[in-house]
Amino acid sequence: MTKVEVQQKVLNENQRLAQGLRESFREHGIYCANFISSPGAGKTLLLERTLALFPPAKRVAVLTGDIQTDNDATRLARYGFPVRQITTGGCCHLDARMVERALEGWDLASLDTLFIENVGNLVCPASYDLGEHDKIVILSTTEGEDKPLKYPATFSRAGLVILNKIDLLPYVSFNLDVAKENIRKVHPGAKILEISATTGAGFKQWEQWLEQKRAACSEAAPALVLG
Amino acid sequence: MTKVEVQQKVLNENQRLAQGLRESFREHGIYCANFISSPGAGKTLLLERTLALFPPAKRVAVLTGDIQTDNDATRLARYGFPVRQITTGGCCHLDARMVERALEGWDLASLDTLFIENVGNLVCPASYDLGEHDKIVILSTTEGEDKPLKYPATFSRAGLVILNKIDLLPYVSFNLDVAKENIRKVHPGAKILEISATTGAGFKQWEQWLEQKRAACSEAAPALVLG
Repeated sequence: MTKVEVQQKVLNENQRLAQGLRESFREHGIYCANFISSPGAGKTLLLERTLALFPPAKRVAVLTGDIQTDNDATRLARYGFPVRQITTGGCCHLDARMVERALEGWDLASLDTLFIENVGNLVCPASYDLGEHDKIVILSTTEGEDKPLKYPATFSRAGLVILNKIDLLPYVSFNLDVAKENIRKVHPGAKILEISATTGAGFKQWEQWLEQKRAACSEAAPALVLG
Repeated sequence: MTKVEVQQKVLNENQRLAQGLRESFREHGIYCANFISSPGAGKTLLLERTLALFPPAKRVAVLTGDIQTDNDATRLARYGFPVRQITTGGCCHLDARMVERALEGWDLASLDTLFIENVGNLVCPASYDLGEHDKIVILSTTEGEDKPLKYPATFSRAGLVILNKIDLLPYVSFNLDVAKENIRKVHPGAKILEISATTGAGFKQWEQWLEQKRAACSEAAPALVLG
């Protein structure tokens, strides 16, 4: 078997498992978002700030992926919601099997939102469906406006693009309009939000976007049959 | 064949080709550096500033890798040295075969330095030997001090770690000492330089480091036999 054939087999098998996850999320009325970005674009801080928005009664959980360390799980667990670390041990992306395993033993009926923080990598994670409703791609203003053109596969699949670190705009040469134009070149009609996970700027819009998504999933869930 | 077996076969084949490149660089007295970082850490700007240091008579060439676009080659070609773009078409790293092909038709005898700018990715490029003397890993101050611990395979193989964007230190929560400590946890004795490719801070040290490396390679080269 050639490298390409094996890769295709792996992707097909991933697709099958992702479909199972998707069914399971639908059945339980869970909205699932898969956060993808370069290392250091601010995924974890964005998730911390987002968890802080939710009252403790909210039914939110997080899976966080890294090649090594469980630092991110430790950071995220402080907000009182269930968090599990997936340590990939060298693998450059999360796949559906890793997510399936990490969800074992969790009572999905107790959740309505699942955030998955992927490995920091703007290339490989985009090829692996995790059964999510949306890939949320984060681009920070320190990375340059050209990145959507260089990583089109990732940006073209984004249900939402978050332009993060807008607090640093005065100190870097990043043109927001050009960045948006480049995003729309590879993904016409892309939804884009500008935020700063550091200062909280733009969080109102992010919260509204998220609430709409969560509400749509919980409405679409099959009615609970009580025995 | 399993995915792991195929991967091992691919890496073995890459190693064989990389060995050929290494011999060729040695034979021609060429110093070769492989620049690895996250997207947007500043590889291209660092290379632009570095090329600007060299008088036109210097025997320097650049290969620059991207998944899509030849923007970087266009930027780098302005400095008057030979530049070739390697567009990987989806592949998340450069491999030795891509470098071998990109060098076809170049007169290596006319060079003493080859810079290879890898695809922006802090994971996969580290596994692919390109026959280089040094992997130069760039970490920017906007990415967080934890990255060496999260991407140990990359940082542990670095002949040099460049901490870039030190001009942004007043505006981000990045502790240089912690970053260096983390680099040394995965790579004791790592050589580290602090620079700003934007302002030029730290370039004196970078230039000196590079000159030493280039001089060592050109001295080690077999004497030219003139026919």
